[in-house]
Amino acid sequence: MPWPQKIDINTGTFALSKNFKVNITGNPNGRIFIGATRFLRRLDGRTGLFFTQDFLTKINEVPEAQLQINCKQSGAVALNEDEGYQLLVETNKIILTANSDLGALHGLETLLQLLQNNGTSFYFPAVTITDAPRFTWRGLMIDAARHFQPVDVIKRNLDAMAAMKMNVFHWHLVDDQGWRIEMKNFSKLHELASDGNYYTQEEIKGIVKYADDRGILVIPEIDVPGHASAILSVFPEIGSKVDNGLGSYAVERRSGIFNSTLDPTNPKTYQVLSAIFDEVCPLFTSQYFHIGGDENNGKEWNANPEIQAFMKSKGLTNNHDLQTYFNMQLVPMLKKHGKNLMGWEEIMTKDMTKDAIIHAWRGTNEGQASGGSLISAAKNGYKTVLSNGYYIDLMLSLESHYKNDPIPKNSVLTPEEKSRILGGEAAMWSELVTPLNIDSRIWPRTAAIAERLWSDESVTDMVSLRKRLNTVSFRLEELGITHIRNKEVILRNISNNQSTVAVNDFSNVCEPLKNYTRNGGGKKYFMFSPLSLFADACSSDASDAIAFDAVVTNYLKDNSIENQKRLRFFFEKWIAMHTELVRLCENAPLVQPLLPLSKSLSDLSAQFLLRFDKKQTISTADLKVLLEQLRVRNSADVELAVYNSLKKIV
Amino acid sequence: MPWPQKIDINTGTFALSKNFKVNITGNPNGRIFIGATRFLRRLDGRTGLFFTQDFLTKINEVPEAQLQINCKQSGAVALNEDEGYQLLVETNKIILTANSDLGALHGLETLLQLLQNNGTSFYFPAVTITDAPRFTWRGLMIDAARHFQPVDVIKRNLDAMAAMKMNVFHWHLVDDQGWRIEMKNFSKLHELASDGNYYTQEEIKGIVKYADDRGILVIPEIDVPGHASAILSVFPEIGSKVDNGLGSYAVERRSGIFNSTLDPTNPKTYQVLSAIFDEVCPLFTSQYFHIGGDENNGKEWNANPEIQAFMKSKGLTNNHDLQTYFNMQLVPMLKKHGKNLMGWEEIMTKDMTKDAIIHAWRGTNEGQASGGSLISAAKNGYKTVLSNGYYIDLMLSLESHYKNDPIPKNSVLTPEEKSRILGGEAAMWSELVTPLNIDSRIWPRTAAIAERLWSDESVTDMVSLRKRLNTVSFRLEELGITHIRNKEVILRNISNNQSTVAVNDFSNVCEPLKNYTRNGGGKKYFMFSPLSLFADACSSDASDAIAFDAVVTNYLKDNSIENQKRLRFFFEKWIAMHTELVRLCENAPLVQPLLPLSKSLSDLSAQFLLRFDKKQTISTADLKVLLEQLRVRNSADVELAVYNSLKKIV
Repeated sequence: MPWPQKIDINTGTFALSKNFKVNITGNPNGRIFIGATRFLRRLDGRTGLFFTQDFLTKINEVPEAQLQINCKQSGAVALNEDEGYQLLVETNKIILTANSDLGALHGLETLLQLLQNNGTSFYFPAVTITDAPRFTWRGLMIDAARHFQPVDVIKRNLDAMAAMKMNVFHWHLVDDQGWRIEMKNFSKLHELASDGNYYTQEEIKGIVKYADDRGILVIPEIDVPGHASAILSVFPEIGSKVDNGLGSYAVERRSGIFNSTLDPTNPKTYQVLSAIFDEVCPLFTSQYFHIGGDENNGKEWNANPEIQAFMKSKGLTNNHDLQTYFNMQLVPMLKKHGKNLMGWEEIMTKDMTKDAIIHAWRGTNEGQASGGSLISAAKNGYKTVLSNGYYIDLMLSLESHYKNDPIPKNSVLTPEEKSRILGGEAAMWSELVTPLNIDSRIWPRTAAIAERLWSDESVTDMVSLRKRLNTVSFRLEELGITHIRNKEVILRNISNNQSTVAVNDFSNVCEPLKNYTRNGGGKKYFMFSPLSLFADACSSDASDAIAFDAVVTNYLKDNSIENQKRLRFFFEKWIAMHTELVRLCENAPLVQPLLPLSKSLSDLSAQFLLRFDKKQTISTADLKVLLEQLRVRNSADVELAVYNSLKKIV
Repeated sequence: MPWPQKIDINTGTFALSKNFKVNITGNPNGRIFIGATRFLRRLDGRTGLFFTQDFLTKINEVPEAQLQINCKQSGAVALNEDEGYQLLVETNKIILTANSDLGALHGLETLLQLLQNNGTSFYFPAVTITDAPRFTWRGLMIDAARHFQPVDVIKRNLDAMAAMKMNVFHWHLVDDQGWRIEMKNFSKLHELASDGNYYTQEEIKGIVKYADDRGILVIPEIDVPGHASAILSVFPEIGSKVDNGLGSYAVERRSGIFNSTLDPTNPKTYQVLSAIFDEVCPLFTSQYFHIGGDENNGKEWNANPEIQAFMKSKGLTNNHDLQTYFNMQLVPMLKKHGKNLMGWEEIMTKDMTKDAIIHAWRGTNEGQASGGSLISAAKNGYKTVLSNGYYIDLMLSLESHYKNDPIPKNSVLTPEEKSRILGGEAAMWSELVTPLNIDSRIWPRTAAIAERLWSDESVTDMVSLRKRLNTVSFRLEELGITHIRNKEVILRNISNNQSTVAVNDFSNVCEPLKNYTRNGGGKKYFMFSPLSLFADACSSDASDAIAFDAVVTNYLKDNSIENQKRLRFFFEKWIAMHTELVRLCENAPLVQPLLPLSKSLSDLSAQFLLRFDKKQTISTADLKVLLEQLRVRNSADVELAVYNSLKKIV
């Protein structure tokens, strides 16, 4: 995963042994040595074979090695590089060839996924794979501004991205809730607007290098002119408020769209930004710099007579024009450092430079056609990247992300327009994630997005996806991804160190409230509120809910005793679970908020059992009342993912 | 935990609510603001109360707060500081007073441990605690040379140390297997002798600051003149080999005591070391620098005629004298930076300067009286720290560490001699630990050592310790300690993503081979060998083994049906477990090495059940043969921790 472009299964297997070794030939970038060494260690960790080869550092060091990697040339981590590879597994040797080390790294990930076993040994099946990505931009954005995400969180996610053949890490570094970059010249920015949570410049350079070693491009983002509370808390004088004196802005502690906006009419605004870019741009190697540009609500501009007068004098008819005026001032600041501008779709106005990348994000939630701006951008001559439909913080279903193709079948685009659609990017906004739970929001779901962006558009089977994702999810653990292990940590805290079986069972039928409803318009959670709660242990695509729905579907087709038994299994489990939750709660106050919902589920389950036993005492109408109890908003901030399935059989 | 010096339980409770706030008065160091903020977040995470107070940054910011902290003065993170505190919990307020913020930080940890709950709410019991440490040196050493331990591993362990009121982090940074310090002047050291795994100077300073914020002193160690393979791989010309040309030394990939030793007769040796200290000393604030000095086997010195001639010319009669000559050259290099020398006990010879700290480590394993050198050092006028008995990498029992008092009851020491015994230090050598399993070797066991060093010598009850340690272990999770969660990760890899119940059950009766036998004299494991195996999921004090032993003890006192039933429970569990392991193994080769041992346990269990049912078919002699099967060395590198208990009932 992602599914390769072409696979031919051959007969036979390649048996792994202690003597397995790797050799590298050609003219690759040094990252292949690091990558191949990492490959060896991961394979050794999975198999426990105690390989004797230590660190690969040289070309053609072990000519007799069973795995031969040949890369013609050194790859550059940039757009439109050749990332293809060919992998040939035979019974006595494995040959991985690629134009560059970038393709070879992808091939090594494929090989790791090919690992099979019987009861006593590990092997690779004989196979020929020819593979290359469909899109050149396969990204993940992590918001390190709302909740700071330390270096180790970023690094382990870069490892996971590489495992899924993703190649762009978009790093959202600045927002209303914090400035996360150490500044040598404007040190007050990180000193006063980060609560001590920022990346040093050395750490940033380290992460850019770490990403490059994994074939991943890092795109930094400083979000302007809106989302500017953190900047303006330090430089209030460049804010658009009429009364922008000391203390007029503060770092935000809540979520939402705030008014704080840079003043595009003030020359000092550009002096500050120019100096910031002079310091920040050299930390990054990418050709693009993301300047945000989203969700400027214009309130401060509307309320400021001087800004209104400026607009008139410049012939700018609305706030969009004024923002474009602002954006265009940034273009030369970035060009100076060899970088082009990228921004959220709001930057796309008639005067925007055509070498900008338009980042499409709005959709039906924002009253727009889903992916509409992506198509417009491509038609208007812009390169463009899709994030609408890939907002993984919305806690929507796996299927919704997987079926979200950057180029839908019904789109009418010329080949040239299509070529401007670079790909897509999963967006991990961090209002409700900390280092404890962030991995569980990103993984394994982002692997489905990675497959959408790499594999052929015809690869859409959900059953196959879920099956493969189960293995991917398990294997991501070896890269330090914490989505499975930290769920247990949260559940242990909730159960107060008692058994976690019942809370775990319940978590497998519950999903966190979707579409930002959990945070009640950004008002429920502060940025320092605890995220160690039941909703944080739950995720979308609740596993038992999916299993239950399959049972319901079968039962509706054939209400045999056997299928009824399978339903019974769940009902009995949920009744016992509720009883156990009540018991746990005696010594675990954090179980309390779960009880109303688990009681509703238990009550309804009991009625179904009575019905199966022909002892039903309440009417279907009353059953429907019970069913609707499952939808009552609860203080656990979750919804019962089995509601729709239950509705089918009420 | 550690148990306070004086506790008075009063009547009533202090109920926690959303409005709980903290106020700080007095004249403390700024670290108390960071510490109090961290305290709030941890308490909020445990209780889910959504406290509204965000970041503490000022003195007397919330005079009406329920928790009042007063510190008279700013604490210095150094030896013999006043770390005492007084904590008064009343029904409507909490008062924490301390001479310095260091004591106040300890008081906050105590308060967190006082958290209680019923079924619906959280509270603190009313209590008066007066507390201060017995020893001023309560340390943990982490070896980052054998296996590199990244910054996040160090930081989470510093957090856990602070939670256990420990105050010295001894950082073993250099050994045969690697040089872990970025060098500006001798960059080849980290470039060529670290495999890319080293701390940047900025990271080191960051860790020293992070530790200081938690009241912890960082003692760096560069181990010389032995353990020098990494240094000599870069500077072979200062090695003691006769033929010390290019390539004569290499970074070691195995464990053990190697010959590589600096040449104490070569002036260049001191030029290099002096320049290294000039660069490394300023990174640390501590008054001491650990120069190692252990396990110099003298082979290279004995074999080098020039060194022998040098000794004669200087009147040095043996290698000990020569090493002291070497050590004394380092004293002024360190003094230049305001630091005194600390070293492993081998540095204690008659000419060693009296302001050195002697680090006692050898014991019965090394053919010496346990703790003998500690007593000698104190009597000889040296300050001294005990690590013998605190080697947590030996995988010995909790009890052995807990009962190891730096000043045993039978020791005859003057008060002045006693005062030179500064305390002790748990030693986490890293031959067999990686970031995946290191926490499980350190925690929760080191909490028992922390209690030994903080609490009164009379606090020795094992039942109380085990009970409290269970809670401590669970709470360490909130600091990011991975001992519980990563065990599951390892077991999932072993079971190949099948159920982990059986492997987990087995891990609870197995312990890793002790006293370094797992590594077969350093020959079995390379530094890059996998440590994701069954032995890595096991730990000392296997939980079911302890529970089983209690059942056996009761049964031997009273072989009632009830007690027999309790034994049966275990036997039946182990028989079922083995059956399940066999089943798992069909799709999990890593289960294979477990089967011989689990079969032996299952076979013996079956015989016991037959005996209970009066159906015994084999003789006691044959039963003994079966019993001894449990002790056969197995490829899983573990031993059955129930052997001794079973022996009692055969």
